[in-house]
Amino acid sequence: MSTELQQYLQLQRERIEQHLATVFPTNWPIPVRLREAMNYSLLAGGKRLRPIFVLAAAEAVSGDLEATYRALPFAAAVEMIHTYSLVHDDLPAMDNDDYRRGRLTNHKVFGDAMAILAGDGLLTHAFYIVTQAAAIGVPAERILAVTEELARFAGLIGMVGGQVNDMQGEQGLTSIEQLQEIHLHKTSDLISFSLRAGGHAALASDHQLDAFERFGRNIGLAFQIQDDILDLIGDSDKLGKAVKSDERQQKVTYPYLIGLDESKRRVAELTDEAHALLHQAKLAKAEKLHEIADSLLVRDH
Amino acid sequence: MSTELQQYLQLQRERIEQHLATVFPTNWPIPVRLREAMNYSLLAGGKRLRPIFVLAAAEAVSGDLEATYRALPFAAAVEMIHTYSLVHDDLPAMDNDDYRRGRLTNHKVFGDAMAILAGDGLLTHAFYIVTQAAAIGVPAERILAVTEELARFAGLIGMVGGQVNDMQGEQGLTSIEQLQEIHLHKTSDLISFSLRAGGHAALASDHQLDAFERFGRNIGLAFQIQDDILDLIGDSDKLGKAVKSDERQQKVTYPYLIGLDESKRRVAELTDEAHALLHQAKLAKAEKLHEIADSLLVRDH
Repeated sequence: MSTELQQYLQLQRERIEQHLATVFPTNWPIPVRLREAMNYSLLAGGKRLRPIFVLAAAEAVSGDLEATYRALPFAAAVEMIHTYSLVHDDLPAMDNDDYRRGRLTNHKVFGDAMAILAGDGLLTHAFYIVTQAAAIGVPAERILAVTEELARFAGLIGMVGGQVNDMQGEQGLTSIEQLQEIHLHKTSDLISFSLRAGGHAALASDHQLDAFERFGRNIGLAFQIQDDILDLIGDSDKLGKAVKSDERQQKVTYPYLIGLDESKRRVAELTDEAHALLHQAKLAKAEKLHEIADSLLVRDH
Repeated sequence: MSTELQQYLQLQRERIEQHLATVFPTNWPIPVRLREAMNYSLLAGGKRLRPIFVLAAAEAVSGDLEATYRALPFAAAVEMIHTYSLVHDDLPAMDNDDYRRGRLTNHKVFGDAMAILAGDGLLTHAFYIVTQAAAIGVPAERILAVTEELARFAGLIGMVGGQVNDMQGEQGLTSIEQLQEIHLHKTSDLISFSLRAGGHAALASDHQLDAFERFGRNIGLAFQIQDDILDLIGDSDKLGKAVKSDERQQKVTYPYLIGLDESKRRVAELTDEAHALLHQAKLAKAEKLHEIADSLLVRDH
């Protein structure tokens, strides 16, 4: 990754962190422990990939980094949705994980009941934050579109639906189509949403929004396949988790279903297509999106 | 309750039931088991008090029953929010209830993981349904206002916050102010939201919306106090649950804190104030709201 891109990502990450620190108004009488539980998971760091896509998409359409401040509420909202999904996924009734990114999971610190309510609170408040874009000049029709899309991409035929399919498919999964369907909804949908939301903030055309959505699909899928590959061939430094864990858990992965070489070929194919989609979208300044896509999908493994 | 009011409530309930049966589009590829779990709790009957308030408020502003169809998406949304909160509340990690209204609770039928995801799905999809009011002529600014208010009244300083306070307060609660605060957020907030949402659908003035909000506060509190009273003096037919259960559970109630007579006096006072608020709102046709308020708060116990 170039130093320039690293600096860009760092800058965007700082803007996002600063904004996330303000999403629960200090003058709201939120129960103290609820506020703590939500902040524990929301302000736990991480790559902030989804909100960075929101800002980068807005910049790509407008051509102006400063103009992306209108997209900040949408960036915060998608990170809140991502965070709530992790908090609920980690619950004993779901994946029953004790640690995430080296820290105790939310329910291990605050208890199961509070973790459920903190997740519900983050999910509900994400929609509140979306509406706050009105105060910084985003037109009502665009905010309405973002609200509808957030509810769709994070909902029944998006992330929540993907979780259900993943949970139910853990045993009987056999085809690459089924696996792709799960990844699309578990991972790609929120990335597609992020790009569309950034586009809306910068008043993107329908054609641009459509290209963003398909770009997000490709990137999300490629990212997931690569994750499967790295998990298999072992690169514990890059992944920050024990390698071959998928194999140990007998999880069905891309390499398991179609082999390692074919998996690598798919990553390259999806990435090429993603770049082509951006070119077709006639964006004012797409270079950062191209660079981010490439940085996520290093092919030299 | 008059026969006419009974017929009115029955008619509204049927309109709501019909609309609730359509909120998960049949052509959406929602995982089958998720759809079943959501419908199990959403279509389980009940008084439909909150959505009836949405429709009655729209009618009160517009003066026209037929014009209330614009409020139907908001009516469905608030019932979805109410339903998700019950599904999550019943979970083993929360209240651990096996039965609700004589049927097994969601997690007893579908498992804890699916109940969590069904709740998340209902909550997320409620916001989707709100946005669908655009297709039937509700202006974008009004839908935006309803979205923001739903996220606020159902969120961190509304219903979710109330749940947290209730959970934490179960031991140390001593003052009537604390108890009132919990009830306001656990019960009144969604009623206030319902009235405001119906008002928005009928293009109510700020003055009318404010009156609705305060009317909802009063009705919600009065309803809760009366529930405490009935629970104490015993009226298992009306309540449909074992009487004196609050006392057995050593739950802190209004009669426990301020006595039975003072509790009754408060119900009457809150109800009188509620009627006065409606009179001040200069509504086109407020009679049904007056009648519903009276029907909820029978004083002859």
